[in-house]
Amino acid sequence: MAREIAVQPLSKVAFAGFGDVIETKDAEQRLINEGTTTRFHDLAGIDVADQDGRPLISLFRGQPFAFPVEITMMERHPLGSQAFFSLAGRPFLVVVAPDEDGRPGTPLAFLAAGDQGVNYAKNVWHHPLLALDAVSDFLVVDRGGAGENLQEFSYPGETFLIVS
Amino acid sequence: MAREIAVQPLSKVAFAGFGDVIETKDAEQRLINEGTTTRFHDLAGIDVADQDGRPLISLFRGQPFAFPVEITMMERHPLGSQAFFSLAGRPFLVVVAPDEDGRPGTPLAFLAAGDQGVNYAKNVWHHPLLALDAVSDFLVVDRGGAGENLQEFSYPGETFLIVS
Repeated sequence: MAREIAVQPLSKVAFAGFGDVIETKDAEQRLINEGTTTRFHDLAGIDVADQDGRPLISLFRGQPFAFPVEITMMERHPLGSQAFFSLAGRPFLVVVAPDEDGRPGTPLAFLAAGDQGVNYAKNVWHHPLLALDAVSDFLVVDRGGAGENLQEFSYPGETFLIVS
Repeated sequence: MAREIAVQPLSKVAFAGFGDVIETKDAEQRLINEGTTTRFHDLAGIDVADQDGRPLISLFRGQPFAFPVEITMMERHPLGSQAFFSLAGRPFLVVVAPDEDGRPGTPLAFLAAGDQGVNYAKNVWHHPLLALDAVSDFLVVDRGGAGENLQEFSYPGETFLIVS
């Protein structure tokens, strides 16, 4: 049995509780470099600095998915946040779920615009990268270091279908 | 008097000593997410974790410069590294200088391709952001926190002209 989940626009308000939306909108602006650069300052809570952790910059190259997108599992990172920003300027799909006694509840689906990134807060259930339309590269800031930083959960007997 | 400096292609070898080139080329690759994502892993040394420091994600919107680009000053960040990746997929100019007794020496100029980022190592002299061709957004990872993290230096009586 598949349950349909409608995708909604990504916004700070809608995403509150799951992490940060990385965007220029409503950001603190600082004019620097003799006026040649605007700095939209401190847009995400990078939370990777336990005793063994350090921030990593990596590039992710994601194969594209197409609607309806089937969701059968979720994952989370107990030790660190994970930020994604599209380098293709292309919208991508952001699927998260509230925690319900150590397992993910019903997913919520957001469409990130090409100029929006996301930062999943530590321990927030989310689906692995879901690029759309074409193979897409993302800049990723997450945690490196010792410790088990991946939990996966398969929904038992349930499938969710993200529809546009 | 202006001295001409020819721009050269950006590569890990040429940029060694100044920081990291963030690119998929020659990176450690990990196939993840059931084969739907390639992770190009750990591409830059983010060096912001002193006692008072924390990593920031910000967006920089840079006004475009045009060749020949006049260089009269440099800056450096004594407390942390600073990484830039173009979100426009557009080449940009990377100007650095070796330290000579606490002041920047003669600049070197690199043309970063649209799919290359840079990470200036802590305390490396570099010019503020030099976008090219059009107003361009960059994702920036640098240091937040207490402490004086900016030094600027104006070349006395000298101007350098970066030529393509």
